[in-house]
Amino acid sequence: MLKPEIRILGFDDSAFTPRSKELVPVIGVIFRGGKFLDGLLRTEVLVDGNDATEKIIKLVNSTRHKQQLKVIMFDGITMAGFNMIDVKKIFEETGLPVIVINRKLPDLAKVKKGLKRFEDFEERWRAVENAGKIKECYIKDFKKVYYQNIGIDDALAREVIKLSCTRSYIPEPLRIAHIIATGIVKGESYGRA
Amino acid sequence: MLKPEIRILGFDDSAFTPRSKELVPVIGVIFRGGKFLDGLLRTEVLVDGNDATEKIIKLVNSTRHKQQLKVIMFDGITMAGFNMIDVKKIFEETGLPVIVINRKLPDLAKVKKGLKRFEDFEERWRAVENAGKIKECYIKDFKKVYYQNIGIDDALAREVIKLSCTRSYIPEPLRIAHIIATGIVKGESYGRA
Repeated sequence: MLKPEIRILGFDDSAFTPRSKELVPVIGVIFRGGKFLDGLLRTEVLVDGNDATEKIIKLVNSTRHKQQLKVIMFDGITMAGFNMIDVKKIFEETGLPVIVINRKLPDLAKVKKGLKRFEDFEERWRAVENAGKIKECYIKDFKKVYYQNIGIDDALAREVIKLSCTRSYIPEPLRIAHIIATGIVKGESYGRA
Repeated sequence: MLKPEIRILGFDDSAFTPRSKELVPVIGVIFRGGKFLDGLLRTEVLVDGNDATEKIIKLVNSTRHKQQLKVIMFDGITMAGFNMIDVKKIFEETGLPVIVINRKLPDLAKVKKGLKRFEDFEERWRAVENAGKIKECYIKDFKKVYYQNIGIDDALAREVIKLSCTRSYIPEPLRIAHIIATGIVKGESYGRA
């Protein structure tokens, strides 16, 4: 049985200018189930860079509340353009299970095409492969999201997703990380239904 | 009867270096009662400057969700050192009631002393006077906070405060604004009990 206030760390990146050499803020929110915000982490990653995975591992491992964290969530496996999140590496180096959420079925052919222009295509594509199979989770009636999971079995991953979707069809840790990451850069940001 | 999901806009400033000439981020969170985050606003104010009141008025009046906002909350009436928040002016120019929360009884003699070094002492001190009488609000048993109010009567102000203290003895809009404002500058921040 899942604790209703299980601590989930949800990440999202800020808005940015594509193909710039900007550093983009990345916000991690520590959320209690689908209920309330308990803490905030911040780092920044380079547009189309390859530092996101390492930066996130470092951030998670240096958090004073790491012992309480039970699972990490991402909204997709790219940040700041094509800065890839290797969830397998994150799971291995933090010991925390990872759930990736996609509201739409990712178009892998399109991702592959986007990645082709990078010299280190092989390595970036590995992050896509390491994220594993894309599965479906029904939140309510006919409303579903797509997810990938590592370090946590399918049934439990779906339980975590459903538990945390208290205000919309997006888990609260991701909805709130998005509002904050967007708002601090754009000056304002509002929740989506 | 107060709606449990009344929209409250709570402000807090980030950490900063005293007496520097820094611009300090100020975060406003749109909160539904004491329940959940619905939006985020951001501006920045100068350490010991005199732009906080105007910046906040501008931010509030330009928000697309202004019509839904019912009340503004501050944690004290200073930001970024001695950048004064004139709540009377904010009430007059936004039309929104304001509640100021202080966890401890403000030491006005000390504030006056701190303000004396500024050439525009008179104007800064006026913000203190404009905030009005400091009153007490019991949250639970013997736990109380101090508050000031303008544009909203005492009984209703206390109702808003109590309604929004769902996770601690600080209203959620202020607790969350604090976590975000601190975390984005320091890289991490955690809730207080």
